[in-house]
Amino acid sequence: MNAPAHISLDHGSGGLASQELIAGLFLRYLRSPQLKDLEDCALLESFPGQIAFSTDSYVVDPLFFPGGDIGRLAVHGTVNDLAMRGAWPIALSLALIIEEGFAVAQLERVIASIAECADAAGLAVVTGDTKVVPRGKADGLFVNTAGIGRAPAHTRISGALASPGDAVLISGTLADHGITIMTAQAGLAVTGQLRSDTRPLHRLVAALLEEAREKIHVLRDPTRGGLATTLCEIARSSGVAIEVEEERLPVRPDVATACDMIGLDPLYLANEGKCIVICRPEAADPLLAVMRGMDEGRDAVRIGTVAACDRPGQVSLHTRIGGRRLLEPLAGQPLPRIC
Amino acid sequence: MNAPAHISLDHGSGGLASQELIAGLFLRYLRSPQLKDLEDCALLESFPGQIAFSTDSYVVDPLFFPGGDIGRLAVHGTVNDLAMRGAWPIALSLALIIEEGFAVAQLERVIASIAECADAAGLAVVTGDTKVVPRGKADGLFVNTAGIGRAPAHTRISGALASPGDAVLISGTLADHGITIMTAQAGLAVTGQLRSDTRPLHRLVAALLEEAREKIHVLRDPTRGGLATTLCEIARSSGVAIEVEEERLPVRPDVATACDMIGLDPLYLANEGKCIVICRPEAADPLLAVMRGMDEGRDAVRIGTVAACDRPGQVSLHTRIGGRRLLEPLAGQPLPRIC
Repeated sequence: MNAPAHISLDHGSGGLASQELIAGLFLRYLRSPQLKDLEDCALLESFPGQIAFSTDSYVVDPLFFPGGDIGRLAVHGTVNDLAMRGAWPIALSLALIIEEGFAVAQLERVIASIAECADAAGLAVVTGDTKVVPRGKADGLFVNTAGIGRAPAHTRISGALASPGDAVLISGTLADHGITIMTAQAGLAVTGQLRSDTRPLHRLVAALLEEAREKIHVLRDPTRGGLATTLCEIARSSGVAIEVEEERLPVRPDVATACDMIGLDPLYLANEGKCIVICRPEAADPLLAVMRGMDEGRDAVRIGTVAACDRPGQVSLHTRIGGRRLLEPLAGQPLPRIC
Repeated sequence: MNAPAHISLDHGSGGLASQELIAGLFLRYLRSPQLKDLEDCALLESFPGQIAFSTDSYVVDPLFFPGGDIGRLAVHGTVNDLAMRGAWPIALSLALIIEEGFAVAQLERVIASIAECADAAGLAVVTGDTKVVPRGKADGLFVNTAGIGRAPAHTRISGALASPGDAVLISGTLADHGITIMTAQAGLAVTGQLRSDTRPLHRLVAALLEEAREKIHVLRDPTRGGLATTLCEIARSSGVAIEVEEERLPVRPDVATACDMIGLDPLYLANEGKCIVICRPEAADPLLAVMRGMDEGRDAVRIGTVAACDRPGQVSLHTRIGGRRLLEPLAGQPLPRIC
């Protein structure tokens, strides 16, 4: 039987065509024994401590972009959500909503990318689901992943644990993912090399925990809403103020130029492979050294400080020219469908 | 600030509007402490044994139908996928993809339904995600749930474990969900009371395991593709044949009439609250008694037998008039978007 070139409603029926898609495409790339069994759910050996559990849907437009694709985002995004509580990712679910008529060749590229990223991150897709909706009822492909991770019993890392005097670090440059998607959506030909920074951060986080587990209070990846919105959430959850030094914020020159051109603030654009670390001040230098020794953290810097909470929830930027600007959470929506 | 009547792209931005939607709507209904923390992932206490993990997306059209709605399906479907491996569900993730312009009042109905069903099933939504796509890029609302369940270490229940001589039981009437959605989609006014059978089956499964854990080989809910397709999958996975007695198949008269009218075979229409049980023959009567003693299994019957595997994968129906008909897995797609 010849493989079809496009997805049809039959592929979502649960019948023969579904089985052919699963066996003929998905299982060629995704090779965990649990998935191969085609059961209603996967069974995994349990472990001591805590189970970390997270989910994200990915609706990025375009599906393929410089530095990545929806499949890479779907693996790395959920891996990173698990890592941000100090967990080590062990298994992913994968649920696809496909528009009738979607090209099988594109689907294969996405599945191959998911398999490659999951392998590289050392985890497996163990369970899944595929739905097909009629033409015009979705936008090509939406991907959902949920993830399970293993966290030690007493890990206490939370957006609510920043405390006055803590140092605020960032693992690398800002806004790379957001500006890449934004320029791709706008069809802009930007000079320079804009690329998404999508990458997994669990190994970086494991190295940080190894260095100073007790002194790390908050880990958070600045995705939708960017650094500014994420810091506002942390400040509010923790009941503290956060002060950021503008001159320390790492932004690649290409990114800064593109942001200027489009009139967007890199502080509000997403990353998909960077990590905010808030820690006791004495741990800042050792943790920066750990990050700089790894590829995913080589541009790590200290960007600010947690301050006493006379104005809890307030995030302020000390500007290059000596001023002070309050950073509000993102109010509108500069970037449709960036992840 | 007045609550908006319709979802806008801002609600998916990760900024203030997203936070208002989460705090003002989702957290009013979904009250687990983990969700309230608004962290990137939830942390759950681990447990001995095995972790069951499953996911499904729900794209049903219409979103509301007799006997249920997309929210009920999304809770019960994942609860049941966990139960079908003998696991007890403990936590759900909830990921929404919402079309711009979707009515907030409808979203609230769905969230209330999810909360009610999760409470009734005794489990919590612990982590979530919300994306909004532009008008015309989705169909109102798509819902994904993933679930985590607790399974004993040595539970061996699988679609690959049916063996010759086993009895084949079904917990209740066939095709109720599929025909309800089908007639709703077609706008047919059918006499009688068609209603989806969506309901959670984990308590039924727990009672079955309590009665005869070692003698239950397969549990499977006949959803997409119906009883016939599900039995074909089991027969193929197990390398056995399955023989079904047509006269024993329980179909409600209203359902049979509607199927006749539309020209669809109830054997290929979905249930969302029924369970196939394949067990050692001596366990059949005790397990039927357990099921009939519970509301969700009161119409349970024995419908067939697993046969020696001279033709592995073959499912045959002994018809009322003494004939024999081979049942093939669903080839086409009788029911677009039934779950």
